[in-house]
Amino acid sequence: MKVPATEKRPLILVTNDDGIEAKGVHELVKMIEDLGDIVVVAPDSPRSGQSSALSVGIPLRLNLIEHYRNISFYRTNGTPVDCVKLSMNQLFDRRPDLLLSGINHGSNSGVSIVYSGTMGAALEGCIIGIPSIGFSLTSHEPDADFSPCREIVRESCKKVLEKGLPPSVCLNINIPAIPRPKGARICRQAQGYWTEEYDHRIDPHGKDYYWLTGRFMNLEPENEDTDEWALAHGYISIVPCTCDQTAYSAIPEINDLLSLE
Amino acid sequence: MKVPATEKRPLILVTNDDGIEAKGVHELVKMIEDLGDIVVVAPDSPRSGQSSALSVGIPLRLNLIEHYRNISFYRTNGTPVDCVKLSMNQLFDRRPDLLLSGINHGSNSGVSIVYSGTMGAALEGCIIGIPSIGFSLTSHEPDADFSPCREIVRESCKKVLEKGLPPSVCLNINIPAIPRPKGARICRQAQGYWTEEYDHRIDPHGKDYYWLTGRFMNLEPENEDTDEWALAHGYISIVPCTCDQTAYSAIPEINDLLSLE
Repeated sequence: MKVPATEKRPLILVTNDDGIEAKGVHELVKMIEDLGDIVVVAPDSPRSGQSSALSVGIPLRLNLIEHYRNISFYRTNGTPVDCVKLSMNQLFDRRPDLLLSGINHGSNSGVSIVYSGTMGAALEGCIIGIPSIGFSLTSHEPDADFSPCREIVRESCKKVLEKGLPPSVCLNINIPAIPRPKGARICRQAQGYWTEEYDHRIDPHGKDYYWLTGRFMNLEPENEDTDEWALAHGYISIVPCTCDQTAYSAIPEINDLLSLE
Repeated sequence: MKVPATEKRPLILVTNDDGIEAKGVHELVKMIEDLGDIVVVAPDSPRSGQSSALSVGIPLRLNLIEHYRNISFYRTNGTPVDCVKLSMNQLFDRRPDLLLSGINHGSNSGVSIVYSGTMGAALEGCIIGIPSIGFSLTSHEPDADFSPCREIVRESCKKVLEKGLPPSVCLNINIPAIPRPKGARICRQAQGYWTEEYDHRIDPHGKDYYWLTGRFMNLEPENEDTDEWALAHGYISIVPCTCDQTAYSAIPEINDLLSLE
């Protein structure tokens, strides 16, 4: 089951959170198939909102479902992070040179990165030292047009394959679903939150249940250095993300607050 | 179903990822029951490793299962983040003054914060502006002795109720499972990763399956400012964590790497 190492060509691991049948991951593969040997390992069904969740209570399956030329497709019953961990353990003789996650159907900008399975997989790659990029298109349509992604996907992959990424940093790239994005901007994650809204219903047995809905509340819509601003104004947003969640700048204040020093 | 607002007493939301029946959450409630009105909203079964996952494909349930004095216990079929979001939407007339998650059975130090449902809930509180703390004891025993946690739980809760926390910052507090921790240290998250190890088995039908195992690899065991060092040396670790994953210091390098400027 091991993927043979061909030393001359980059090895690219691809995953997503919309599942192996989603259009976005197949479009992504088409955009990069000349850049290396491609191994796709994706969930068997949608795993949106899975963040960095991993499966501790169920055994995982990993099945090769298709192989042609330089591309293999594997399916798992796990989360996006499971896909990365399990494929690293079972499929590779060497570390992939690049991990790509997506292209997600729907944006992962602002605080959505926290919940995003797409970015969960990219952060996992980052943690284990693979240069990693998450791609998302701001359209939830199953049959969305991914062509606005093509140029940034190829350009960013080629540059990251050539130069790598800084330690503990991965990229969160969101592409506006418009025919011609104006260009790409390096941004920070916009501050905001999702409103807690639930569609409250009564089941046929008279019991309450709740469907998650909600809207993103952008707390800084005017700030031009944020990803939300870039997307709202027709630009591709690129946010460098870290897997180190330490709030370094708060350390002195917390020391003072808890009176430890 | 709304929790009445008693203006004079703090309102404290408690959740966890080990489930409503875990000893840790009940011990936590006992430690703080004199500090305010307590509302526990916890998953109906263990949700370890759920990170910031939320339920988008299933409807949620929320049921009051016990109420006495100033304490209510609710059960959901969701993740820790679902517990926070759903209770914010359905239970409260006002924003809780404090969110506590735990006490987790097992540590959440180093990069484990990324996968931790305990810290997923604390980060959710942080995102929506509630001062939030995650507590974890470095013992997975179902009947662990939580008494080493008591002093830091009470002290940190009292101080955070009094002074709040900086915006976008929550606390990740890990307590060593030893009779007398030496004291508490403000730390940063140790750099490291979990090895991808899987227990590969064959099912009765001849098909492969894989159980997640693995060990934490600490890349900097000698560095005294990390949470892993503190715990290994008998101290309580306190890591201020941010919900902003932007790698600010990498922005110039990424600009240069992608040649956007």
